[in-house]
Amino acid sequence: MDIIEPTLLLDEQKCRQNIRKMVEKAHQHQLNLRPHFKTHQSHEIGRWFREAGVKSITVSSVKMASYFAQDHWTDITIAFPVNLLEIGRINTLANQVNLNLLVESEEVIQKLSQKLTTKVGVFIKIDVGANRTGVHPDHESVIQKLIAQIDGAHFLEFRGFLAHAGHSYRARSQEEIRHVHLGSIQLMRKLKAKFKATHPNLLLSVGDTPTCSVAQDFSGIDEIRPGNFVFYDAMQQQIGSCQFSEIAVAMACPIVALHPERGELVIYGGGVHFSKDHTQADRVGTHYGLVVQKDNGKWGEPLEQVFVHRLSQEHGIVKAPSDFIAQQSVGDLLYILPVHSCMTANLMKSYQTLTHQRIKMMT
Amino acid sequence: MDIIEPTLLLDEQKCRQNIRKMVEKAHQHQLNLRPHFKTHQSHEIGRWFREAGVKSITVSSVKMASYFAQDHWTDITIAFPVNLLEIGRINTLANQVNLNLLVESEEVIQKLSQKLTTKVGVFIKIDVGANRTGVHPDHESVIQKLIAQIDGAHFLEFRGFLAHAGHSYRARSQEEIRHVHLGSIQLMRKLKAKFKATHPNLLLSVGDTPTCSVAQDFSGIDEIRPGNFVFYDAMQQQIGSCQFSEIAVAMACPIVALHPERGELVIYGGGVHFSKDHTQADRVGTHYGLVVQKDNGKWGEPLEQVFVHRLSQEHGIVKAPSDFIAQQSVGDLLYILPVHSCMTANLMKSYQTLTHQRIKMMT
Repeated sequence: MDIIEPTLLLDEQKCRQNIRKMVEKAHQHQLNLRPHFKTHQSHEIGRWFREAGVKSITVSSVKMASYFAQDHWTDITIAFPVNLLEIGRINTLANQVNLNLLVESEEVIQKLSQKLTTKVGVFIKIDVGANRTGVHPDHESVIQKLIAQIDGAHFLEFRGFLAHAGHSYRARSQEEIRHVHLGSIQLMRKLKAKFKATHPNLLLSVGDTPTCSVAQDFSGIDEIRPGNFVFYDAMQQQIGSCQFSEIAVAMACPIVALHPERGELVIYGGGVHFSKDHTQADRVGTHYGLVVQKDNGKWGEPLEQVFVHRLSQEHGIVKAPSDFIAQQSVGDLLYILPVHSCMTANLMKSYQTLTHQRIKMMT
Repeated sequence: MDIIEPTLLLDEQKCRQNIRKMVEKAHQHQLNLRPHFKTHQSHEIGRWFREAGVKSITVSSVKMASYFAQDHWTDITIAFPVNLLEIGRINTLANQVNLNLLVESEEVIQKLSQKLTTKVGVFIKIDVGANRTGVHPDHESVIQKLIAQIDGAHFLEFRGFLAHAGHSYRARSQEEIRHVHLGSIQLMRKLKAKFKATHPNLLLSVGDTPTCSVAQDFSGIDEIRPGNFVFYDAMQQQIGSCQFSEIAVAMACPIVALHPERGELVIYGGGVHFSKDHTQADRVGTHYGLVVQKDNGKWGEPLEQVFVHRLSQEHGIVKAPSDFIAQQSVGDLLYILPVHSCMTANLMKSYQTLTHQRIKMMT
């Protein structure tokens, strides 16, 4: 399949290796791996996880849960605060699969208990420092009330505490990631210690790609839920979660104009392909993607000082040294590591493997 | 149709009024209006333009040109540097419609002239200061060469010069917009003066939403190509292109968690719905969307100090004063003016009108 427009390339070998590595790590630490499927949003890639032994998954919406239920996933956590307006869909889904929901307030538990028609598992969402959502772990009396309310509700089954240490994305070294991780799991372990007398089976579920990739201490933790690691990306490399060589996706974008006089070239590939997420890199500063070496249909390391400098809707402006620009022609393809592979995949809606297979995503 | 998930609402009345206003302005200044359809990407909304008398359109990709050709648009400019890799699609399309392409280098003109099988119109792209792409207007000898090359090519017909004063997006007042506009059209008029002796029919095509909304001097200009004005958005209001009351789209997002203690609430609505584009607003600073008053299914002005403060993939964090938060419940909907309606529409893939019709977009 010739590439003639912006295309998201997927290196299946690297991707399966990322999956295998995380499966092994979970096994080694006796953790249930419940990978977050919002990154790839694809039945096909989901099956690669299944082949590696994964049985339970995380998603970020009811729609995504339904999409994966169609492909025979039967143990699904929707790691997003319950959207009460979707109660009809939730009841349908809970009839088909073992479903876990996230709660964090009495109001939601009460309304759920009134409107559910089938049993669901519930985790209480704990805010371990990302300040996105969840109950503060110090508010033990609030948590105690929520648990009592869940215990008293007919169709709700308390599963445990769930956290997402999203502040790990602000880390810029493995040491900083480990620091975030230890802080986060200490808070979670304290909660387990507090409530395990009354609820001996309660689970602690944590996990974001930086901490799950880097940390080695998971004592007391039962489950991890990383998502992005299936592909990684330029931001994860910058955070310290992965090597460039582990990044399993790259955008292929046609060159449409050369501007050697200002050290730039223009690609067909803009905000509607990459998303507008950006990050930093050494000797480059803020960028929207790193241009990599091409090697026989595969890709290698980033080229020195060749990067996406700005994006409009369909245009990407790539900064590059003059000797690089001199070697390019209009109609050539550049391979570019995306900054945030979850957002890029969500926009691109399909993958092309290095063996020219097209892999579809949820639409 | 009950709204139960993030939904892009469209006020048809405001939208048709924005169209009508721009049609009248073009008529008043004797300009051809060739609106950019990348903003709405919809057959249905395209028909509203047709009903208002519009006959020619602008798009940003070959795919988008084909989509609108299917709905009987026969005069289409692809306002993006020719992607030579799509020459097969371009030839197919040029057989069906009057197609205009953008060129800016000898290399592209040469390859086009070798590979085209049908006549197309070509504009030379001029960089009037946005520094995205195009030939610098001072490089008259380069431009002269390109024109001669086009004139000598069998299937290329020189149409004129095309510019996009994208630096108008950095303006923050009507005066600044007009300043950008005047600078831009002066450069274009100079080119017309230079080349009209040999090419008396050459056209000047300009246009972006800020300048087309605000400027009143279009002397010497033949055509305008604004796109975003069909909806406008919070960024255009900040630039000075429109009033809040003219913004024709709003996101409806369910509230999923309340955090009064930190003056925030969480909505179902993140970067995969809004895009990560952001802008500034008075008394708010950087934001990703402005929450507006709800009024019987319609929306009014932005609420003071209630705005989307940050976004992750599916979560939006809204900052709000405590009295506002106290009035909200989980499961309520917030209506939010998007920062950049083109990017939001591109992600949402459909609209819901205030009369509960679903309007589809290109997929």
